[in-house]
Amino acid sequence: MEPLRRARLRELGIAVGTLPCGPLNAITDVAGVGVGQVTLIEDEPHVIRSGVTAIVPLLGQLWRAGCFAGFDRYNGFGEVTGTHWIAEAGLLSSPIVLTSAFSIGVARDTLLALPFVHGVPERWHQPCAAETYDGVLNDGLAAPVRREHVEAAIAAAAAGPVDEGAVGGGTGMMSFEFKSGIGTASRRVHAAGQPWTVGVLVQSNFGNRRHLTVDGVPVGRELGYHVTPSPQRRDDGEADETKGSIVIVVATDAPLLPPQLNRLARRANAGLSRVGGFGNNRSGDFALAFSTANVLPFHQVGMVRGLNMLGGEDMNALLPAAAEAAEESILNSLTMAGTMTGVRGTTVHELPLERLQALMQRHRGAAV
Amino acid sequence: MEPLRRARLRELGIAVGTLPCGPLNAITDVAGVGVGQVTLIEDEPHVIRSGVTAIVPLLGQLWRAGCFAGFDRYNGFGEVTGTHWIAEAGLLSSPIVLTSAFSIGVARDTLLALPFVHGVPERWHQPCAAETYDGVLNDGLAAPVRREHVEAAIAAAAAGPVDEGAVGGGTGMMSFEFKSGIGTASRRVHAAGQPWTVGVLVQSNFGNRRHLTVDGVPVGRELGYHVTPSPQRRDDGEADETKGSIVIVVATDAPLLPPQLNRLARRANAGLSRVGGFGNNRSGDFALAFSTANVLPFHQVGMVRGLNMLGGEDMNALLPAAAEAAEESILNSLTMAGTMTGVRGTTVHELPLERLQALMQRHRGAAV
Amino acid sequence: MEPLRRARLRELGIAVGTLPCGPLNAITDVAGVGVGQVTLIEDEPHVIRSGVTAIVPLLGQLWRAGCFAGFDRYNGFGEVTGTHWIAEAGLLSSPIVLTSAFSIGVARDTLLALPFVHGVPERWHQPCAAETYDGVLNDGLAAPVRREHVEAAIAAAAAGPVDEGAVGGGTGMMSFEFKSGIGTASRRVHAAGQPWTVGVLVQSNFGNRRHLTVDGVPVGRELGYHVTPSPQRRDDGEADETKGSIVIVVATDAPLLPPQLNRLARRANAGLSRVGGFGNNRSGDFALAFSTANVLPFHQVGMVRGLNMLGGEDMNALLPAAAEAAEESILNSLTMAGTMTGVRGTTVHELPLERLQALMQRHRGAAV
Amino acid sequence: MEPLRRARLRELGIAVGTLPCGPLNAITDVAGVGVGQVTLIEDEPHVIRSGVTAIVPLLGQLWRAGCFAGFDRYNGFGEVTGTHWIAEAGLLSSPIVLTSAFSIGVARDTLLALPFVHGVPERWHQPCAAETYDGVLNDGLAAPVRREHVEAAIAAAAAGPVDEGAVGGGTGMMSFEFKSGIGTASRRVHAAGQPWTVGVLVQSNFGNRRHLTVDGVPVGRELGYHVTPSPQRRDDGEADETKGSIVIVVATDAPLLPPQLNRLARRANAGLSRVGGFGNNRSGDFALAFSTANVLPFHQVGMVRGLNMLGGEDMNALLPAAAEAAEESILNSLTMAGTMTGVRGTTVHELPLERLQALMQRHRGAAV
Repeated sequence: MEPLRRARLRELGIAVGTLPCGPLNAITDVAGVGVGQVTLIEDEPHVIRSGVTAIVPLLGQLWRAGCFAGFDRYNGFGEVTGTHWIAEAGLLSSPIVLTSAFSIGVARDTLLALPFVHGVPERWHQPCAAETYDGVLNDGLAAPVRREHVEAAIAAAAAGPVDEGAVGGGTGMMSFEFKSGIGTASRRVHAAGQPWTVGVLVQSNFGNRRHLTVDGVPVGRELGYHVTPSPQRRDDGEADETKGSIVIVVATDAPLLPPQLNRLARRANAGLSRVGGFGNNRSGDFALAFSTANVLPFHQVGMVRGLNMLGGEDMNALLPAAAEAAEESILNSLTMAGTMTGVRGTTVHELPLERLQALMQRHRGAAV
Repeated sequence: MEPLRRARLRELGIAVGTLPCGPLNAITDVAGVGVGQVTLIEDEPHVIRSGVTAIVPLLGQLWRAGCFAGFDRYNGFGEVTGTHWIAEAGLLSSPIVLTSAFSIGVARDTLLALPFVHGVPERWHQPCAAETYDGVLNDGLAAPVRREHVEAAIAAAAAGPVDEGAVGGGTGMMSFEFKSGIGTASRRVHAAGQPWTVGVLVQSNFGNRRHLTVDGVPVGRELGYHVTPSPQRRDDGEADETKGSIVIVVATDAPLLPPQLNRLARRANAGLSRVGGFGNNRSGDFALAFSTANVLPFHQVGMVRGLNMLGGEDMNALLPAAAEAAEESILNSLTMAGTMTGVRGTTVHELPLERLQALMQRHRGAAV
Repeated sequence: MEPLRRARLRELGIAVGTLPCGPLNAITDVAGVGVGQVTLIEDEPHVIRSGVTAIVPLLGQLWRAGCFAGFDRYNGFGEVTGTHWIAEAGLLSSPIVLTSAFSIGVARDTLLALPFVHGVPERWHQPCAAETYDGVLNDGLAAPVRREHVEAAIAAAAAGPVDEGAVGGGTGMMSFEFKSGIGTASRRVHAAGQPWTVGVLVQSNFGNRRHLTVDGVPVGRELGYHVTPSPQRRDDGEADETKGSIVIVVATDAPLLPPQLNRLARRANAGLSRVGGFGNNRSGDFALAFSTANVLPFHQVGMVRGLNMLGGEDMNALLPAAAEAAEESILNSLTMAGTMTGVRGTTVHELPLERLQALMQRHRGAAV
Repeated sequence: MEPLRRARLRELGIAVGTLPCGPLNAITDVAGVGVGQVTLIEDEPHVIRSGVTAIVPLLGQLWRAGCFAGFDRYNGFGEVTGTHWIAEAGLLSSPIVLTSAFSIGVARDTLLALPFVHGVPERWHQPCAAETYDGVLNDGLAAPVRREHVEAAIAAAAAGPVDEGAVGGGTGMMSFEFKSGIGTASRRVHAAGQPWTVGVLVQSNFGNRRHLTVDGVPVGRELGYHVTPSPQRRDDGEADETKGSIVIVVATDAPLLPPQLNRLARRANAGLSRVGGFGNNRSGDFALAFSTANVLPFHQVGMVRGLNMLGGEDMNALLPAAAEAAEESILNSLTMAGTMTGVRGTTVHELPLERLQALMQRHRGAAV
């Protein structure tokens, strides 16, 4: 029997949590948010499995306006640039670029240069680039990601459906010792009498298989290694399983201030822990959150600005939404990514979907 | 049929996670850690359901030595004193006193005064007191907790089994709209060729019923409100469900430095999120962690001290241990607490144990 | 010749920095801010030199509305309650109560109880109390500060001139080994086409004499100990000089968000470092900042609120204002405090004003 | 009369603070610390005024061992990589590379790749690169700093005297609207019966001229703009003066743990505030601190390590040392840098040394 084609979690009849999704079940359900991706898969002269995923918070305002942002570090073995400015001022002025650990510097320098190139005096611009490590499948030392790839990903940013799995910055990634990459999801909630959307996109590259948990079901414990071997499993113990990282990007149209966005980011990391992320020592696990509601033009100085804010009480509905959307995004990054062979002939196997369905069915007793 | 007597989670045939427990499955499995509790239950002249739980990190070194500590804030609507010093210096010199939100000030002032009373010049002492809100069952404005209760709890601190449920600081608490209170658990792990213990004690007072999750099983979703009504459920929506707080105390005998203890505290909060804590807006959810391995005598100044440290790689085994032990402690605080009626005649019902067992059995297919 | 009566720094012909003051040169130059103080000086049955200083951010809105706040820790050997909530949500709902290290718990519990007493359901109230250690002059173990003193200080809060020196929470304090206490100052700046006020009040209790610096002049180095002996100078070295703490409260009418108020608090601590505060190991040096511009009624839930914000660029004028006002407040707390004898017969001498004037004149060449 | 050749502050007869210097009055007074610099000055095809300064914490252990580190952000408009790992684990495994804002990405990617190139499996390596903005004099968009320059600076790292002024990463920098660049200084203190060294190196690029303060003397106020015009002064106000940034690197041989190194970094920033840094809105002002005392070999896993620690009380001597050394380093970066003309013909003038001496003499009454 043919294995199932890769599919999103909900196409497999599996859901996470209780809140309803947006129409695309993607970060782009938040109006104005764009995603653009460049995927680099080459075998000659170097084995390249890498790429760039760019999230533009305010499509149509690129290099002209910023927005409020927040941040949360679950475990700090990794890099996200621009976070000193988010911590200081709560401001995001840059697309968020996700890429390989080998290439975040290129992404960051490109993001700094672009406003100059576009004739935009940098007023309060700090580049925001983040990375996870794709060296298991990708020959990162060949420095495959170049300035033009970063520019192309940003230029490609658009609303609409988002490619998932082994694409963009997620091309060479693995999670729970299965192939993964980019995943996305969204949730719709009501607060203060209005509907709001919380969207998440992850570049997922973390986790010990035995910890993989799907909506509470201990899938990893039961799948074990007889299904597919771990690409990194070695005789000397678990050290190599414990590497890896994840970057979680949360977008919302709810009018949240920077401290509130820190809270949303923290809840996204709660979703990470619910799916089985314990933040291993050498994992760089970060969540960024931004709100599209208050648009802050770069050149608007010398004035008092009017803003909107949702009160803290009214945030309660949004907090589990961020956790659920993060949890489902991570799972989508797995169910959408197919087996890949990369540098040194290493193969990272896909999460077997039939087994996942069977396990979920047994635990939940739900028809699929 | 009689309902089951209150029991610990494992007595019900339910376990959390995969790691083995210590002999007592309690924070006191960490050698040298003592717990003392004072429970205040009175109906006249005020309806009192309150108390004090004291955790002494280094029994026998009280007021004479401190240890390294770390801290993590999951949500900040609450109070823990002494955390500025933990953030600054990573030092804990005080018993950790858990009590009512109405009484943390008394606890803190008592902790400041005690070393003077005992003739110990305060060298680097900062009192560490934490609170959750027991106003649903307790008439806190009557200020029932007094200096002598704090002193008595500290004086009673001892190794050995720990009372759980509606005792000590947990007397008047509720979680997931069920009666809860104090809970404890522990895990044993190996790292760097040696066995280590991670113990947790919680004062648990948080959560929306629908989020209650037991080892991944969505117990709260399925139990709902037909089992027992929520004491606070009102017509005007969910606002009142979203209050509440939790304090998690993590102890370990592994030689961890302050930044490592921050990480352990963060993982305890990951356990909190796994059991269904999303950190509601008005929840004060905090984790404190300390290590008994490096004893720091107060008067040891004017010298370079020798210390031990477990490396970061070797911490990997401890991180899920903190999460698992926190998760199980919270559940013990529920399964060990019986229905209670308090101020204004409010009754908070206990978590029904048979229903819990049945649900777990159906989901896990495990014999009980 | 009679020594000069105690006087404010500017009455001595000495100024700090370059920015203009508000009309009162006090925190109460920020409209709506009130200060109330209770001073406790008794010799029987205990030698009491203590008290309470209460700062009410929004006079007329007490227990009905809160405002945005920020926080900065320069050194963490001390206690400020309510800061977990400021860190989490950027909200201040409570008067700020400054008192003795022995009494902060009483102050905190009183602040928690008061809204209940006033029939105000606590929606997002976290008490904000701060302390410095007055045990050199005050018999703190006698617990002289009681609930009624805290209530009285809050009830007394009013606009207008503020008493300085050995009053309120500052009654028993000392700085740079001279008598000090409460001090205040303000600055007026223009930004975004409008005038704004930054006001500061300190409870000052820190510093090694040799570090005392007045507008850059190394006054402490030159005054030394031949002028007045240090009350704590001992044969065994400097350890006792290095205790002490300071709480700095910054108020502004500029519409700043929580991250911006963190920045303002940090700059107040820059003022602290300019006057000679190096944050000794056992010093609890904290700055709180709040803005009166966005009033947030407690019961305003279920809606999107409109706010105002001054942009980051426009904050540049405010940053040195906070530093200058903090610097001058500390100096006012010294020049306004007279010699005091307290518990155990200890005398803490006042800063000699003629010597200060002479030193400043020599260095600056300015006529006084 | 010829202007004075550029000189270090002490060669001008001016000192800062009261503590004695090390023999070189440089960061390299801390044994084992190396500095290497590459200076790029070209006029064709692009006007380049840039470079790289590399600080190697443990000469001879490069890529083989790390050390403890701390961090402090005074204002966050800038980038320092590797700080998530310092915040998480307190570990520094990388040389610290200081360079242009345009080139920090190149530096970071190079630092990631180098251990692979040297055959060192990255165990816990996170690259540490920091930047300040040299776009006033340097055509940064030409991307002049390349991988080979970063490698060369690291390879050149050596003990001994350190070049100051317009060299290395500091080549194109300016401070207080005067030419500046790299500066260094050190202090010697005694604690716990032993001598310790605190060394500082800065890449200084910040400040409004009117705030420049030399050992307390308001030099900037008095020098004003009649001496040398500001390169950026415009008709539209002060906005452009308020840009800029500084990176402060603190090294010590005292055995400090990560929280203690955070404190040392914070005190270095106190020195920054004493020299006139108020952390303008668009300034990226950061301090990094590391200790060479506990050497942590990368491959030392699976064991409990022995460490040394200086107690908190014994740190008191070190705290002002970090402030003084930072203050003097900044001033050395000014007094050692000569007038430079760069891109667009912009000239940044040097700080006039005779005027500085005269001002100091008048204020301090000291013979030069």
